[in-house]
Parts: sequence; structure tokens; C-alpha cells
Amino acid sequence: MAGPCLFPVCMSRWEYVVSFSERLVEKVSQKKTPLCLGIDPRWESLPKSIRTQFGDATLDPSVIAKAYLAFSIRVIDLLANLVPVIKPQSAFFEQLGFAGFAALEEVIAHAKSRDLLVILDAKRGDIASTAEAYASAAFGLDDQTIGLNTDALTINPYLGEDSITPFIASATKRERGLFVLVRTSNAGAGTFQDLESNGKPLYQHVAALVDRLNQESAKNSKWGLVGAVVGATRPSEISPLRKMMPKSWFLIPGVGAQGGKPSDLAPAFNSKGMGAIINSSRGLTFPFHPDDPNWESKIIEAAHKTISELAEVAKPGS
Amino acid sequence: MAGPCLFPVCMSRWEYVVSFSERLVEKVSQKKTPLCLGIDPRWESLPKSIRTQFGDATLDPSVIAKAYLAFSIRVIDLLANLVPVIKPQSAFFEQLGFAGFAALEEVIAHAKSRDLLVILDAKRGDIASTAEAYASAAFGLDDQTIGLNTDALTINPYLGEDSITPFIASATKRERGLFVLVRTSNAGAGTFQDLESNGKPLYQHVAALVDRLNQESAKNSKWGLVGAVVGATRPSEISPLRKMMPKSWFLIPGVGAQGGKPSDLAPAFNSKGMGAIINSSRGLTFPFHPDDPNWESKIIEAAHKTISELAEVAKPGS
Repeated sequence: MAGPCLFPVCMSRWEYVVSFSERLVEKVSQKKTPLCLGIDPRWESLPKSIRTQFGDATLDPSVIAKAYLAFSIRVIDLLANLVPVIKPQSAFFEQLGFAGFAALEEVIAHAKSRDLLVILDAKRGDIASTAEAYASAAFGLDDQTIGLNTDALTINPYLGEDSITPFIASATKRERGLFVLVRTSNAGAGTFQDLESNGKPLYQHVAALVDRLNQESAKNSKWGLVGAVVGATRPSEISPLRKMMPKSWFLIPGVGAQGGKPSDLAPAFNSKGMGAIINSSRGLTFPFHPDDPNWESKIIEAAHKTISELAEVAKPGS
Repeated sequence: MAGPCLFPVCMSRWEYVVSFSERLVEKVSQKKTPLCLGIDPRWESLPKSIRTQFGDATLDPSVIAKAYLAFSIRVIDLLANLVPVIKPQSAFFEQLGFAGFAALEEVIAHAKSRDLLVILDAKRGDIASTAEAYASAAFGLDDQTIGLNTDALTINPYLGEDSITPFIASATKRERGLFVLVRTSNAGAGTFQDLESNGKPLYQHVAALVDRLNQESAKNSKWGLVGAVVGATRPSEISPLRKMMPKSWFLIPGVGAQGGKPSDLAPAFNSKGMGAIINSSRGLTFPFHPDDPNWESKIIEAAHKTISELAEVAKPGS
């Protein structure tokens, strides 16, 4: 999308004068926790009361999308004062077609209206102008306030350095952030990530590239905009990866349902409790049986419990 | 999305009794060419006449999406009798937000109404239930006729075997196909794909996994449902990859604008001209200056020229 602005609109809510990493430090300090609220809506897990409100068994996809939106907004409102950042999972919205995509836009807008940061978990990856288009989908088209308007996006490194640099260019221009998949949290992550070449596994080669690109973007700042996804499920790897990527924020999934323990995550943080965002999705959003009328208090309890577990290893802003 | 069908709808246009690879063989035989029409709409490249029709400089994103739809439908109609398959690139639609996503759904539906196969180029990759959700986004939710309804989807292998198997399960159930990124066409593909481990580069490790998973899915059939993306830009690699994945269809990008030559692609095909789909996007959709009133005939000429170049290396159905 080259050329001049196609239509005149107010840009204010899309532009940032402060970098993504500075916004992250500020929000994490303010909430005093690195906990990230993962939003992966599943129809069968929604509270019965919300399903009933939207007609339960008589649904069409656009109605399911509205139910996802209503639930997501409610969870965001319940936890907005507790967490600094949310991470919606694009796939669960995309499977509802364009109505789901529209709901995702609204979830993101609502989170931003509650002064939360948003990391879109979409794991995009492609080359040249296609990578630019994915960046535009996440961060907004140049000169236009459309797209999902996320603060940061997860990306996949398999296509190589020249597939990552267009995302960095776009993120730099718009003061957004990236999290490159380095070490994923799934049991089978090692199929390729563990393959050793020149004495180190593939995921460490990816880490080395992330560090180089991040240091270039960070210049003299404490943190750069190129972060890393590092799963919580192999805790012994976190400390070496921290040393390899000293200026990268880590996005750490895999706590809770996937088996990762908060107590293992200390090496991800510096002495000020900064440097990592710990995501919990199912653990925070579905800690109840769908029939439980007290689902809202279960969500708040789950958040307090996770925050207190994380406080054992990181005390940001204290 | 578990449980019974949420609403009663006609399933016929979403169900297939014939496998994806059989549909591919049939269509390629019928059109006597392996040429795939890549659809990557770019606003600045659209014919001036279409831009004017949609208000040109006064556009909003939903209008751009309509212009992309109008152009894509026209190109599909121009080439529907010549090519067996189209490959829309999801990113270019996603960057227009949900209106772009809705346009993509309509482009796919139109191609299917013209009896073309559709490969969605979205390069998705994630774990477990998230991978299932991406498969549902591409192939339709279970028991529901929503989603993009593509015949096949491109996926990224970085997360490992257990991130690929949910896509295979979904594709098997719905008689759809997959193309796993093995060797991409970008100049920097080698950053990680060339890293040698146990005597062979990463992309060959991926090829070995694709072959194993594909052979398991193919059983006694000639072709399986797990194909491979193999760039046209490193022709010497095609023959060894063909030997490593004898039952996998190849999706070959990189011809035309990216520099790959049809004459180099012979090793991808068997003696019957089967086994590979050759994609051209910009070369087929934008072989004209935007001001050219004869853009439609330029598109038809470009298709005939590419088909005739490909006939030198593959003569399917003859």
C-alpha cells in the first residue's frame, strides 16, 4: 500500500511516541506483575450463562463470535486492574470467519480502552511484501487506522532473516514490538528446534539472530523491540537463552495447563523483575466448570493466585 | 468446537468424497497445465479503471476490499478455463481487517463456483488445539459451513511434528491437503534452512518428516495429502527433494518476478507431468501498467505464455 494517505482520519490512537519496550516496562511496573492474560476462547468452555445469553445450541458463527467477544470483554474487565498485557490467540477468532476477525478487532480495541497492552499471537511469517502485509494487518496500514492495532505480534523464523526484517521495519516505524518463536512450549518442539548444527541446537541459532537484530534495533536502550518466545516447559534452557538475548523481552507461554511452573522462571527476569511476560490462557480464563455461576470470582481468584506465585520469582515495580 | 452440529445447514458444497490429491490430478489433467494462479492484490498495481470504479483516492479499507474482490473475480473469470488451481495470499486481505477477510471468503467461493481448486497461502503453524483452530479457519468448522473452505493450506514446520499432525487430522477428515514449507523461495531462505545437522541441511530434515507423514497418510495411494513448498529459485535442489518425497505434491513458488525459470522445473514432475503445481502471482495478475486499458488481454497473454513455457517441462493429461 504505497503512496499518500488515502483518506483523512485522526491518527492519534494509532501512534506512539514511546517505544513498545518502554510501554511494557511502564505497564509491568504499574501492575507489579509480569502476568499476561491469554485469550483463547473455546465455545465448549464458556460459562453456561454466556452461552445461554447467545442462544446456546441455536448458534451461527457470527453469534458465536459475539459470545467470544462478550466473554473476552468480561474477562478483560475483571482483570484490567491486575494485569499489564493481554495476548489474544488469532486462530480461535479466525475459525469463525470474518465475523471472528471483526470480534478480534473489538477485543483488542476494548483492551486498549482499558489501558492494557496487546500482543497478538498469530505466529505469522512470510517474505518481503507479504511480511509487510502481515505487519500491516497487525499494526495498521500506513497512514490508515485499520487493522488489528496490536502493540506486538508473534512471528515464525523458519523463512530466515530477510523474512524477519520487514516486520522489524514496520514495528520500528510504528513503535511496536515482535516476539520471534525461539523455543516453543509443546512437547514435540524439538523435532527441528533441537537439531544441532555447529555445536548448538537450531533454537539457539534463532536466538543468536534475534539478539543481533534486537541489538541493532535497541542501540543504546535497555531493551529492544525484537523479543523471543521461550516456552516455560523446559526451564533449564531459560538461563542460557537469557544470556544469549540480554536485551530481548521474553514472552513465556506454557505455564499452567501445559505444565510449566512459575517457580522455574526466575532466570528470565533481571533483578528489577523485568524482562519477561508470563502468559496464562486456560488457567486464567477457564478455571471453572461451565455450569458454575461463580465463574467470575474463579477468574479473579486464579489471577491473584498466579500473580502471587510469580511474585516469588519477579517483583517488578516494587 | 466440540459437540454436535450447532445449526442445521446443507453440507454438500463442503464435503468431498474424493481426496485432495485425486482432485488435483483430475484438474491438472483437465486443464493440461500445472500452472497455479497466485492472487496477491496490491492497491497500487490494480488497473486504473478498477481503482476509479471504486472511487480511487477517496477510499476506505472496506472499499479497497471490494476493489480487491472485483479484481480477483475478474482475473479468476479470465483464467478459469486455463488454470486448475488458484492460490490467494491471506496477508494481502488480512491487512484490510475483517472486510478483507470477508473479501477473501468471497474470492475463494467464486473460484470454487468456477470449478477451480483453492490453496490458501497463509503459512500457519501452532500447537495442539490452536493448530486445529487454524485448520478449521481454512477448511471449515466441524459440522458447519463456515470458514474459508479451501482445498489446501500452506503450513510452517518450525514448531515440530506435533504441530503438524493436528493439521493432517483435520485435512484427512475433510479430504483436504497441506503444503508444508520445506524450502522457501526467498534469497535469505538459508539462514536456518541451510544449517547442517547429521550431514544434511534443515530443509532436508523437514522433507524427511513430510515424507514420513505423507506416506502414512497416502497408504497405497499414488499421492498423499501432505505436500511440500519448494521454491523455484534453487533448481538444483528440486531433484533431490523429489527423490526424498516421492508421493508429495510440490507447490513451487518463485517463478517469474522472483527469478525462477520454468525450464529448470522438470525434475519436480513425473513422466505424466504430475506432481507439482507451479505458482505465478505478479507475473499473471499484474503484467500491465495500471493505466493500460488492455490489461485483461495482457493477463490472458501472460497465462498462455507461462503455460506454454511449462509445457516444455510437463505435459499433464496429454
